Amino acid sequence: MRLKRESPDPLYAQLKDLLRTEIETGHYRVNDRLPSERELADHYQVSRITVRQALLDMAREGTVYTRVGKGTFVAEPKIDQPLRAVTGFSQDVQMRGSRPASRVLEARVIPAAPDVAAALRIVPNVEVVLLSRLRLADDIPLAIETAYLPFSLCPTLLSHNFAVESLYNVLQNDLGYTLWQAEQTIEAGLATAHEIDLLAMTPPAAVLKMVRLTFIKDSVPIEYVFSIYRGDRYKFHSTLQPSVTGQPA
Amino acid sequence: MRLKRESPDPLYAQLKDLLRTEIETGHYRVNDRLPSERELADHYQVSRITVRQALLDMAREGTVYTRVGKGTFVAEPKIDQPLRAVTGFSQDVQMRGSRPASRVLEARVIPAAPDVAAALRIVPNVEVVLLSRLRLADDIPLAIETAYLPFSLCPTLLSHNFAVESLYNVLQNDLGYTLWQAEQTIEAGLATAHEIDLLAMTPPAAVLKMVRLTFIKDSVPIEYVFSIYRGDRYKFHSTLQPSVTGQPA
Repeated sequence: MRLKRESPDPLYAQLKDLLRTEIETGHYRVNDRLPSERELADHYQVSRITVRQALLDMAREGTVYTRVGKGTFVAEPKIDQPLRAVTGFSQDVQMRGSRPASRVLEARVIPAAPDVAAALRIVPNVEVVLLSRLRLADDIPLAIETAYLPFSLCPTLLSHNFAVESLYNVLQNDLGYTLWQAEQTIEAGLATAHEIDLLAMTPPAAVLKMVRLTFIKDSVPIEYVFSIYRGDRYKFHSTLQPSVTGQPA
Repeated sequence: MRLKRESPDPLYAQLKDLLRTEIETGHYRVNDRLPSERELADHYQVSRITVRQALLDMAREGTVYTRVGKGTFVAEPKIDQPLRAVTGFSQDVQMRGSRPASRVLEARVIPAAPDVAAALRIVPNVEVVLLSRLRLADDIPLAIETAYLPFSLCPTLLSHNFAVESLYNVLQNDLGYTLWQAEQTIEAGLATAHEIDLLAMTPPAAVLKMVRLTFIKDSVPIEYVFSIYRGDRYKFHSTLQPSVTGQPA
């Protein structure tokens, strides 16, 4: 594999593609150390600036990580989360064989802001439970979730310890609700300084922003959640079905 | 509505929330000019630096846009695209009542790279059609799509003019294929310099990165597509179903 100097693609992008292919094909495995900047520069006959640009981009994308003074290592592949069922973070993490945990950032009863009230189909300023958590898997921060729930539907919610308990477990097992459907949007955004700090990212960093409205039976909204997922650690997966209107005239 | 100086949320973030609420509730409408930086600073009793930070963030998120020397205006809401059916960009744009167009960036036959070959279930270096397009709606660049198709399944593909024709129309109407299912992943990333240039964004900018593998009947892969969607113009929507394993013991 050689870099093509006559190609319209910049050399650092070609080097990135090449290293990524070597990782995908198993030439380098998870937690393997890549050759040093100097070794890569010598091997591919490019400048160290080119190598550094390629490695920096790969680190931002989550393909590699660096340890100061130790070098650059192959990262775990991104978590590939299905966009299909109404599952919560704890359950998703457990199904991957990891240990979920939370740091509660905020947990209190507040008057509903206009957008929250509209989503939950309640009157503005009616009380809602606000539960904001940093979500971790095996002690690694992966997401920030801020949920709003109608206080009238879960007045005892804040007696639970959400550092260890799952909100969906409490809603289902303690409060007896069956989570039915959810409407969810997914967007890309730049992480704010606060998000970068909580999620231990390096700026500028991209995040996935999810907004979910979850319903119990009879189409009653039970929670309105804003989530920020680390863009370097997550991807979401869906299966698209045949388009009924897909056959144009 | 007032800003709370004692709140842990920084003033610029509070101002952003407040202006966003005024836009969502219709106090300011699409293409309305917001008050000037000085007017906002006077009205909310904050510094112009605070106002500038709030407006810059809102511009990056796609809530407002600026015109040099003219001020800051309310942007159109993000396009909310369902993640459900195998539809193409042209059809999606037409269904929103807009006019799709493309600028062909690259269209040629190349040997399949290892990752493309693996996805398309062909032998590496076998010929594939590469079609890379900048996708526009009403002349606004929204996405970059780079598709790979097995040459043996569509040897006449490049005789079409993809500046005006839809790839899915050609596959269905000219080549007689029925697009069946697709597997798709969605990620957030930072736009590269090249993507920022093509999509007319301001750095640093977040993009949605989609990878789609589309099948015709009998699970034969017909296209493997890498798409970059503007993070400030798009969000994707899905409906989540009840989780069968959602009721823990």
